[in-house]
Amino acid sequence: MPKAKTISEKIFSDHLKRDVEAGELVIVDVDFMMGQDGTSPLAIKTFEEVGANSVFDSKRIAMVIDHNSPSPSEKVSALHKLMRNFRNQNNIFFYDIGDGICHQLVPEQGHALPGQIVIGADSHTCTYGAINCFSTGVGSTDLAIAMASGKLWFKVPETIKIFINGDLPFGVYSKDIILYIIKELTANGATYKAIEFEGNVIDELSVDARFTLSNMAVEMGAKVGLMKADDKVLEWLKNRTYKEFKTYQSDDGAKYEKIYNFDVSYLEPQVAKPHTVDNVSSISEVEGIPIQQGLLGTCTNGRLEDLRIAAKILKGKKIGSQVRLIVAPASRKILLEAIDEGVIQTLIKAGATIVAPGCGPCVGTHNGVPSDGENVISTANRNFKGRMGNNKAFIYLASPATVAASCIEGKITDPRKYL
Amino acid sequence: MPKAKTISEKIFSDHLKRDVEAGELVIVDVDFMMGQDGTSPLAIKTFEEVGANSVFDSKRIAMVIDHNSPSPSEKVSALHKLMRNFRNQNNIFFYDIGDGICHQLVPEQGHALPGQIVIGADSHTCTYGAINCFSTGVGSTDLAIAMASGKLWFKVPETIKIFINGDLPFGVYSKDIILYIIKELTANGATYKAIEFEGNVIDELSVDARFTLSNMAVEMGAKVGLMKADDKVLEWLKNRTYKEFKTYQSDDGAKYEKIYNFDVSYLEPQVAKPHTVDNVSSISEVEGIPIQQGLLGTCTNGRLEDLRIAAKILKGKKIGSQVRLIVAPASRKILLEAIDEGVIQTLIKAGATIVAPGCGPCVGTHNGVPSDGENVISTANRNFKGRMGNNKAFIYLASPATVAASCIEGKITDPRKYL
Repeated sequence: MPKAKTISEKIFSDHLKRDVEAGELVIVDVDFMMGQDGTSPLAIKTFEEVGANSVFDSKRIAMVIDHNSPSPSEKVSALHKLMRNFRNQNNIFFYDIGDGICHQLVPEQGHALPGQIVIGADSHTCTYGAINCFSTGVGSTDLAIAMASGKLWFKVPETIKIFINGDLPFGVYSKDIILYIIKELTANGATYKAIEFEGNVIDELSVDARFTLSNMAVEMGAKVGLMKADDKVLEWLKNRTYKEFKTYQSDDGAKYEKIYNFDVSYLEPQVAKPHTVDNVSSISEVEGIPIQQGLLGTCTNGRLEDLRIAAKILKGKKIGSQVRLIVAPASRKILLEAIDEGVIQTLIKAGATIVAPGCGPCVGTHNGVPSDGENVISTANRNFKGRMGNNKAFIYLASPATVAASCIEGKITDPRKYL
Repeated sequence: MPKAKTISEKIFSDHLKRDVEAGELVIVDVDFMMGQDGTSPLAIKTFEEVGANSVFDSKRIAMVIDHNSPSPSEKVSALHKLMRNFRNQNNIFFYDIGDGICHQLVPEQGHALPGQIVIGADSHTCTYGAINCFSTGVGSTDLAIAMASGKLWFKVPETIKIFINGDLPFGVYSKDIILYIIKELTANGATYKAIEFEGNVIDELSVDARFTLSNMAVEMGAKVGLMKADDKVLEWLKNRTYKEFKTYQSDDGAKYEKIYNFDVSYLEPQVAKPHTVDNVSSISEVEGIPIQQGLLGTCTNGRLEDLRIAAKILKGKKIGSQVRLIVAPASRKILLEAIDEGVIQTLIKAGATIVAPGCGPCVGTHNGVPSDGENVISTANRNFKGRMGNNKAFIYLASPATVAASCIEGKITDPRKYL
């Protein structure tokens, strides 16, 4: 009888056509790989330094300009030009300014599929675990080697199982769940582990909301945040790909490093306080803290559902006179859909500033660097000192609902009073 | 019999309640004044250095964050904070990130009216001449003194009269007219003069299109580009102000420094080539020059009519694979109107990147700095070396139609083939 396996063990075993277990070092074919404009330039330089002539398969590589979109400086523009030249020489998939954030585009454009092994030179590549894909962040050098050879080495990770069950209360979202889990496990509670999320709450979440959970797996150090590919995922993948794919579930009796059980029935909205992502409080403990800037967007919470929730709260209202609200939709497609639904118009009328789809303010490259001493409430995934470009600013992380409500009042606010 | 006067002489005479003529040095009450985020911080510092305690009239001053919107750096954020603190202390009009470009907001929000004297710490303040307002750019120090005292010194300018008559051909716009006039008069052809634009072509232009002409008066060195307040202007002003105002026309027999007559019946689309605004060619002489970036927006051509023209050309089409098109609507209001009409959606579908309303790429602060050696085609008003943040890039100035057509083909293109 074959040994019971985790999702990660199964995906690696099938790729290698032999049984592998957690802990083994393997070299494996990568199904798709991606770099953004913070990491691709170095990958391209390494690719050239190792004497690679051409990429192993142009249809398995994408580069995305999202961290500086459009370019804020001559220096960055030179790196963008390097990337565009590489695109022209190698005919890879390329997403230029205005197209969106890599972690939205890779699944949205059908590049990441269930059962695949996908790498990205960006730490939040773990996001596509939500659609049953083993996806993980790598360094620029790893990306360079993979672009040349199609392969990369891995240590097949042990798995931590996280069950999320209960009745998710009104006004509490997947962002609140993951912030609470990070608080409990801490910022290094899953280092180099795969996480498998499971439970009735996962089943009930939309795919958009699931991405938020998987996106933040790396904030506990995890390689990937895997979920099974249920009917919602299969529906979500329709019209995104014509490729065959196989879905994976863990076996009964699979070996887990740890198992956690969370009942979220009594969870309140959560807020991560400066300057670590696991410094998390319930909303009631932080209500009233003044904020000067809000950020709605990022690879964590820049999807249509996120913008809709904020628009529902801001409809017919204005943000506070001492507040800026910056909205960065996660992709061109999401921006268009949000305009079609009137969501963007509601946000603009409320006083929000819509910036080009991309990462900008979240990573502090441009489009919303806070001033000294300012408090920002953001839907992003990181709040360390300097993350948004100013190490004398203070970043609070929360759900789109909490960000929207807080921008109305100019202080951290429980969103449930506006829902 | 009183002496025949120009518009400028009449406005200054009425303000001073005595007859003044061109050439006189006067100190006059200023009706409205404005600073942007490139100039206001210095004005505020000077205001404080001269020991001013409060502004002379909070309802006659506006500050606008448009040159860096939203902030691309910690350093700029500190200046924005300085401006916001000044707003809080002095209760002035304030337009924060996402609200738009000062030269759109000041007339759009009813701050500049016919017959008024308006100053702005930005060279393109001459724009509001299109609505019969004597408006002109001043330095930060001048703004500081005026904020404290309500007054400023001027030399009442001599006037150059420019008649624009004929049948404006299809596919040729006010931008083409003003580029052609600048070519003829040269970049210093109207230094310290007022210009009065008149003629059947002016009468037939929309107010939006007239702003484009007045906006570029300073590109010939002029203080202001005045036009009369006809019914179109009065209609445009409806719902923008409840204040009384008086309109002005020059007298028959008024003394002009020079008079020019242009017949634009055979004018072709015009393009200003690098690196001076008066280095202008007809489209046929520059067609085919490759371009890598387009910019649609700015205080010259970021109005609804401009976006509409570009959308008409780009509808159902895609920009070239080697081209970026950056669109910066001139204000929040214009952005909303352009969404209501489907104009923004058409541009996004064509591959354009919509950035927050503001100046960014035009002034090279962020949101679209070109790479070394790249050619940009832009609807802006200046193309000197380094204007867009890289002195190794090349800027061509043209109408929104020419910019849109060129972005489709990836080379400078006569827009008439797409209209």
